[in-house]
Order: sequence, then C-alpha cells, then structure tokens
Amino acid sequence: MSAYIPDPVVKRLPMYYRYLKELERNNQMFISSTELAKLTGLTASQVRQDVNAFGGEGRQGCGYPVIEMRKYIGKLLGKTTVKKMVVVGMGNLGRAIVRYEAFFHDGYQTSAVFDCQSQKTGLKIGPLTVQHIRDLESVLAENPADIAVLTLPASAAQEMAERLYRCGIRGFWNFAPVDLHLPDDASVVNVHLDESLELLSYRLNQKKRIQP
Amino acid sequence: MSAYIPDPVVKRLPMYYRYLKELERNNQMFISSTELAKLTGLTASQVRQDVNAFGGEGRQGCGYPVIEMRKYIGKLLGKTTVKKMVVVGMGNLGRAIVRYEAFFHDGYQTSAVFDCQSQKTGLKIGPLTVQHIRDLESVLAENPADIAVLTLPASAAQEMAERLYRCGIRGFWNFAPVDLHLPDDASVVNVHLDESLELLSYRLNQKKRIQP
Repeated sequence: MSAYIPDPVVKRLPMYYRYLKELERNNQMFISSTELAKLTGLTASQVRQDVNAFGGEGRQGCGYPVIEMRKYIGKLLGKTTVKKMVVVGMGNLGRAIVRYEAFFHDGYQTSAVFDCQSQKTGLKIGPLTVQHIRDLESVLAENPADIAVLTLPASAAQEMAERLYRCGIRGFWNFAPVDLHLPDDASVVNVHLDESLELLSYRLNQKKRIQP
Repeated sequence: MSAYIPDPVVKRLPMYYRYLKELERNNQMFISSTELAKLTGLTASQVRQDVNAFGGEGRQGCGYPVIEMRKYIGKLLGKTTVKKMVVVGMGNLGRAIVRYEAFFHDGYQTSAVFDCQSQKTGLKIGPLTVQHIRDLESVLAENPADIAVLTLPASAAQEMAERLYRCGIRGFWNFAPVDLHLPDDASVVNVHLDESLELLSYRLNQKKRIQP
C-alpha cells in the first residue's frame, strides 16, 4: 500500500472509485477488467495495468471484488478519515461549493466559511454562518481544518493561502485563476474554470476547421 | 497556424494566454522565456519548446512580443468569435456559473439557461430568465449555441447531452460526474469537481504518511 503510484494512475483513482461505488450501489459483487474498461472508456489492458500499479487484486475467474477494491482505493485516497474544509470567499462560486451536497457524502465536512466583506458576515449558507476573515486565525486555532477552498479573486489568493498555511492548513483547493506558491509540504489542486472552458473552445475551433 | 499541436501544449495555452493578458494589462511589451518560465512555474527550455510547438515567434534580443503572442494564442483558442453558451441545470453550481462574470469578459456569452423544474421557470439569474427544458429545441432552433454547460445530475446528463447534440451543439462543458459518449464531431471537457477534491485528498494523505 505504500508503493509509489505514478501520477496518471493517481488521477484515475477517483474515477475508479466513482464507478466502483456505483457498482456497489447496484449490488454487483465482481467486475472484470473488460467491463471496467467499458465503463471507464479505457482499454482492458490499461485497466489491468492501473490496478497493478495501485496494488489492487483480482480473483482468478471472477474479476475484481467491487467492495474490497472500492475500500482499498478509498484508503489510498484518504477517505477513512473525515477531512475538514474551510471555504474562503463567499461569492457565487463559494456559496455553490458549500451547498454542493455531493461533497458531504463522502468524507468531507465544511467546518467554517469566510468572507472579507462585513455585510456578508452572519449570512447563513446552508448550515453554516459566514464569518469575517479577520477571525480566521482564532477560528482555525479552535477548530483546525485540513483543506482550504479558495474561491476568491486572483489578486487575493496568494496572500490568503500563506495565511491559511500559517494556520496549519496543508491542502488547498484553488479556484482562483492563479498558481499558488507554497512550501513543499502543502498540496495544491487547481480548478481553473477559465482554462477548462478555453480548452473546450480550442477543441471546438480545431474541429470546425477540419469539418467546415 | 494549422500545424498539429500536442495535447499537453494545448492544455497550457490557456495558462499562457492568461499570463500574457496580465502582462498586457501592465503594459509590458516583451517577455523573455526565462521570465515567462518564472511566472508559469515551467522551465525556460520548456517554455521555448511550447512556443515552438504552437508556432509563436520571439524577437532576437527582445523576447516574445506580449500583445502579438496573446492575440495569436487567442486565435488558436477560437477567441476571435463570441461563443454562445446555454446552461442546463439551475442548481447552485449552474447559477454560480451563469453569474461568474469572468466568463463574459472574454468571448463567451450565455444566451439561455434551462431547468426541468417548473417552479424555476421564469426566475431571473443575472440578466437571463430560466426557461423550461421542454422548450430547449425551439429556443435553440431560433437562437443556436456553440457550447452547452451541463450542471445536472449524473443520471440525466447523457440523455440531455444527446438532445443538445441533436440541436446542433458540439461543445460540452460537463460538470456532471459521468463521462459522456457523443459522436466524434462533439468536443467534451469535463470538470469533475469530486475527482479533483479526491486527488487533493490523496496527495494530502501521501504527504502525511511521508511526514507524520
């Protein structure tokens, strides 16, 4: 379980987890690499390589055991402990993320939400109350968190990330359209929505030129 | 401009575009590969390879011309024509995307928003009014769109994507946690927020095990 897993395989783990969870819900006990390939859009050989790389095991003639493999991947993904999140920036995106219930199913819990605008302090977002960012340090000292969700303007993101780092946060889910620079023991995953939309735009553009 | 650009380079184009736009706003005329590398977190040699791959040109002793290169990448990304978008699914995420003004700066225009719930029909989201999904075909016949943003449950996404495809839409920005299967002339870019959060969780978990 402690072996090195290549990054491209790691990036597919959540996808495998998602499909296995669905199979589990449908009470399917085993799945073959061929079936799993069909679901995921990969080839069967790719699936077997991936499973091999992350250390999963199949059973001769049965395929992969669904629940066991789902739990194993869940462990790799750190799903055995609930991760506490704080969300900084209560604009539309921040509020949507707090309300996006899918995140709460599966090992995440939003413990506090912050904004720098005084007029937002005290607003209710789902079960949480918006707190002023000036109280960040005291709130986190009392109730530490694992992950900070940054849904704030590009200009404010780096400084806020450093402040959160000093409060002990090591996971950064960054929606601000900048790349964060943080010490090596921090983990950052970016969701740059603008870049994602532009990638789609590029692909559309290319296909139009091929098939005018 | 019509040469093949490798996928990893394409994925970095929006990032280059973003930094060049910022430099342009700051009235910087030229930028060296070393400076651009520092901004983007790549190496200077990687930047030069990328620029070479997408067909940009530097000037001896000056570096890359900021405005010219920004425009060139913009053309590659199809930013010369405004892309019309429709958003399907007016939950929290759909509403946040419609309101997320950053998208409107730069060549995108949301022309219609839909939901399947009658009680949402007629609601105002920014400058738009929610229409019932039953009117999808007639609305799109009158006012065609390029891109559909899917912010709806996994169970509804594939069928809706096919319906949108039949209405002439070829670009799909998919936030539903499923992979869409569409004809080859369609382009799909997925934003699987749950997978992105789980990737962060995995990385956090690994670092904790290395530095307990």
